[in-house]
Amino acid sequence: MKGVYLVTDRQLCGSRGVEATVSEAVRGGAAWVQLREKTATTREFIKTALRLKTLLAPLRVPLLINDRVDVAQAAGADGVHLGQDDMPWAYARQILGPDAIIGLSVETWADVEAAQDQDIDYLGVSPIYATPTKTDTKAAWGLDGLSRIRSFSRHPLVAIGGIDADNAARVVHAGTDCIAVVSAICAAPDPFAATRKLCETIEIAIENRGTWSEI
Amino acid sequence: MKGVYLVTDRQLCGSRGVEATVSEAVRGGAAWVQLREKTATTREFIKTALRLKTLLAPLRVPLLINDRVDVAQAAGADGVHLGQDDMPWAYARQILGPDAIIGLSVETWADVEAAQDQDIDYLGVSPIYATPTKTDTKAAWGLDGLSRIRSFSRHPLVAIGGIDADNAARVVHAGTDCIAVVSAICAAPDPFAATRKLCETIEIAIENRGTWSEI
Repeated sequence: MKGVYLVTDRQLCGSRGVEATVSEAVRGGAAWVQLREKTATTREFIKTALRLKTLLAPLRVPLLINDRVDVAQAAGADGVHLGQDDMPWAYARQILGPDAIIGLSVETWADVEAAQDQDIDYLGVSPIYATPTKTDTKAAWGLDGLSRIRSFSRHPLVAIGGIDADNAARVVHAGTDCIAVVSAICAAPDPFAATRKLCETIEIAIENRGTWSEI
Repeated sequence: MKGVYLVTDRQLCGSRGVEATVSEAVRGGAAWVQLREKTATTREFIKTALRLKTLLAPLRVPLLINDRVDVAQAAGADGVHLGQDDMPWAYARQILGPDAIIGLSVETWADVEAAQDQDIDYLGVSPIYATPTKTDTKAAWGLDGLSRIRSFSRHPLVAIGGIDADNAARVVHAGTDCIAVVSAICAAPDPFAATRKLCETIEIAIENRGTWSEI
């Protein structure tokens, strides 16, 4: 698991819309897409998920659904991303089966410890930096928190929260596998170019990861 | 399918809470319970559903979940109630299987016609009367609308919207199978007594249904 992980935000995508933004982002190299809808009806949520699945399946880019296991099932998505207030992971695993991708947000050290025994596919380390797009989270992990989780955790890590092309290299250096972004792509004037820039930044950072600690 | 069908409303249940209200309502004779949560997190929704399932299963009172197929699966509920903005019924049937109870709200005549070919278990005729608890519905069906659906539809009918002990007999007479209520039980000072009164009213109305048209 590596690369740029896009989390959608309908409001930030604006008149361009979620599907066009996702289309541009995967053209720019996004390797994972999480559809997040906080105000849509279930029917609208499923419709968007079905359209994204049609777009992403031929590109072999996994589609994950935020929170809603039922939407993931209806749309044939590849999995779900669960927060600590969402369905407990074990129910989701039971419902979606062993092949589904299940990601779990960790917001406290207790969450990180609990996750080690859990049959989940990655940890969403949230938030790395304080961010205006999500106001219901706990204290920011910072790069030190991310490094500490990296040393401790057996799971791939997806870092999220306030990451952009300017700080992405530092976040990779701190040990994340994926860089998840919302605003840096959804609110970008050119989501294709923004994603491409992020991908390049991450690639270079990964290549240099061995030597960075000496800088 | 017949009797009193309770739809929960956390706000109307107030400090008594949803579980205590449901407990009193089934003691008073409620035959169906639909858990409806519009602001709860998924985790809270599942927790409440699990508690209600534990309460209702020994009494053989079916538990239906409003909108959320995933919550129904996690809690082992008996089925779902779907509105026209919720998951399309065919996806829900596919996910939940042939034994699940699936109810569908009909708000227009087109909904009623479309439902005739659908593998659903009842129609929620919504609203019968205008009501403050649900503001996103279309024009009220009234008793005439309900009678018209009764003549046309092959499905059992659950009438909902503004029904109480004073008008329940008229709604039964118009041809419904179940009387669904929100406020009339959730906001009642004594949900047990309120349910009991509704059940008695319905029983008498059903017995007299044959003779009522002459009154």
